[in-house]
Amino acid sequence: MRATITILGLLCLPSLVFGQRGPTPYYEDTKNVPVSPEIHPDRTVTFRLFAPKASDVVLMGSPGILEVIKEPKPLRKDDKGVWSLTVGPLPEGFYTYGYAIDGGLRMPDPSNPNPELRRWGNTSLFIVPAAEKAVFEERPVPHGTVHIDTYDSKNLGMSRMFYVYTPPGYETSQQKLPVLYLLHGNGQIESSWTWTGRANVIMDNLLADGKVKPMIVVMPYGHIPREIKPDPAGPADPMAIEKELLTAVKPEVEKKYRVLTDREHRAIGGLSMGAAQSLSIGLHNPDQFAYVAAFSGGGNRAEWEKADPAMLNKKFKVLWIGCGREDPGYKGVKGMADLLTEKKITHIYNESGGGHSWPNWQTYLSKYAPLLFR
Amino acid sequence: MRATITILGLLCLPSLVFGQRGPTPYYEDTKNVPVSPEIHPDRTVTFRLFAPKASDVVLMGSPGILEVIKEPKPLRKDDKGVWSLTVGPLPEGFYTYGYAIDGGLRMPDPSNPNPELRRWGNTSLFIVPAAEKAVFEERPVPHGTVHIDTYDSKNLGMSRMFYVYTPPGYETSQQKLPVLYLLHGNGQIESSWTWTGRANVIMDNLLADGKVKPMIVVMPYGHIPREIKPDPAGPADPMAIEKELLTAVKPEVEKKYRVLTDREHRAIGGLSMGAAQSLSIGLHNPDQFAYVAAFSGGGNRAEWEKADPAMLNKKFKVLWIGCGREDPGYKGVKGMADLLTEKKITHIYNESGGGHSWPNWQTYLSKYAPLLFR
Repeated sequence: MRATITILGLLCLPSLVFGQRGPTPYYEDTKNVPVSPEIHPDRTVTFRLFAPKASDVVLMGSPGILEVIKEPKPLRKDDKGVWSLTVGPLPEGFYTYGYAIDGGLRMPDPSNPNPELRRWGNTSLFIVPAAEKAVFEERPVPHGTVHIDTYDSKNLGMSRMFYVYTPPGYETSQQKLPVLYLLHGNGQIESSWTWTGRANVIMDNLLADGKVKPMIVVMPYGHIPREIKPDPAGPADPMAIEKELLTAVKPEVEKKYRVLTDREHRAIGGLSMGAAQSLSIGLHNPDQFAYVAAFSGGGNRAEWEKADPAMLNKKFKVLWIGCGREDPGYKGVKGMADLLTEKKITHIYNESGGGHSWPNWQTYLSKYAPLLFR
Repeated sequence: MRATITILGLLCLPSLVFGQRGPTPYYEDTKNVPVSPEIHPDRTVTFRLFAPKASDVVLMGSPGILEVIKEPKPLRKDDKGVWSLTVGPLPEGFYTYGYAIDGGLRMPDPSNPNPELRRWGNTSLFIVPAAEKAVFEERPVPHGTVHIDTYDSKNLGMSRMFYVYTPPGYETSQQKLPVLYLLHGNGQIESSWTWTGRANVIMDNLLADGKVKPMIVVMPYGHIPREIKPDPAGPADPMAIEKELLTAVKPEVEKKYRVLTDREHRAIGGLSMGAAQSLSIGLHNPDQFAYVAAFSGGGNRAEWEKADPAMLNKKFKVLWIGCGREDPGYKGVKGMADLLTEKKITHIYNESGGGHSWPNWQTYLSKYAPLLFR
């Protein structure tokens, strides 16, 4: 076959063609690119970077792997200019990381084609697989579809996107389905729950195991306006998503998708910044949402102190809060759950190991989703 | 508002929380990150990188911007450790680029959140907007949806993805639509035509202007197996996509989407490697495809020399070939068109300026799509 495609190769492969007129294009020059990360059978992981003239290369997190290695760790250079570091064994799960070079330059791993896509400052992503397939690992089960929807926001005078998961069979069915609005964290984007967090794989697996009702999952973009660089003071107004979600995203979803539109068939949940957004949106709109969840984030304590327990207990079918004991925000989230207990607002509090990272968020989704629409 | 969200901020913002226990996470440290690329009103573009200890920083292409700057260009360092270079004015369009540092390390631009996602070796992406909106620029017109479909390939024993564009209104209509299969180039992936090439935006704009018939566009993954690192000899077997497309992707599309299934309502086209694939798949399967296009890539000349002109002229409603005069493969593609002319195989040959890059592929799509399904 190689012989018969020579002409084809010459015509269509930049790797061959561009060699004739200058440097190998960026992406085809592999000779200096070591394997990285290499995930060993014992779940240790080796990171490598070719940077012969660098004086200092450090493994960073976003926070991702920082939660396991605790602090940035230096790599060591060999005589060929390849820096390396082995860490772990690591618990199964998703890890994000990047490098800091010479104390200043930060970059994703050029050997790793899987970026963690962020609003700004993309990092790299890898998975330590579980001995038995974890809920975030793809299995040969029926697969749902991820939709990328673009809409023109009248509120904001710009086009924005949201992602939608529909379960297997949605396209050929006439059934109307309930909806979970699933919000991302600070610095993340509308694709984060699927691209990085694999919410679609998780939902496929939960459905295949009969653990969840078929539902549509809508993943809007949580930053308003579309900030490119993070502001050290935090997002301009993280609650601006409330108006956008209710007056722009929700109507668009309900026009375009076959969904149930009563409160009993509408849920909200989010991680980190999205947790705080979900708690506030739920509290402000109990006539719109019967289910509310906060993953690794608390709420606006002042407004919850003024909440009406009797009304909320009547309205909310599930109010779910989860946090890892190693999460830097652990005390705050625990304090929020304690406030709910004090006020006798019925809720589920799920305390786990781990910190402020995807393995927890993926697990929390796999615990919250089965409670919905029962 | 800032005051009322303090607790929320403390709970949910890693930028604040993580500062307490170690280094600022990778993506939140913006103090050393210059603006890059900066696109000036005169269409010159300034690239910047903070790398105080680097001895050499070069602007590279993938090939992308290399086609305009002709060869890798060095940046110059200022007294704050920021390297910079201004190029252009550049023609309107899409550009991909990366940096090479100290002669070895290659990386995307850490200031730029928009990666060009590739099978391997992601680069960065920016757009020089047109004075009047170009066909690839988003306008406030009705927007179609991009779908990410996962399927388990029995041929390959693995799960794979394809992307699908459906036009505005697809969700609420019962109409069956024709299908264009649109293939990517070597090193690109199933998301390249939408994520990088914005085929969805192009189709939205062409539809809004009444220039195309409503159609579904299916964008499969063209590399089999899923090679991570490019092989210097080229893809293992670029034509392996033929079986996968016809026996796995097409049945899945026709099961899941409301599509017309006769040859007169099925088209194929692709860029670079995808051009060669499209020409061969079209030639082998004239009973399946009435429209065939090759953007910036030729075909397997030997098999076209043996082709039956009378049969093909009866079967193909459009056979379309486009190439830029600055494309390194120009002579080969032109030779293919000349062969078709010699053999009296009816075709359209579209020669343009420019080279082997997105502005041409986007323009070619906007010329080919209006000819389909008439």
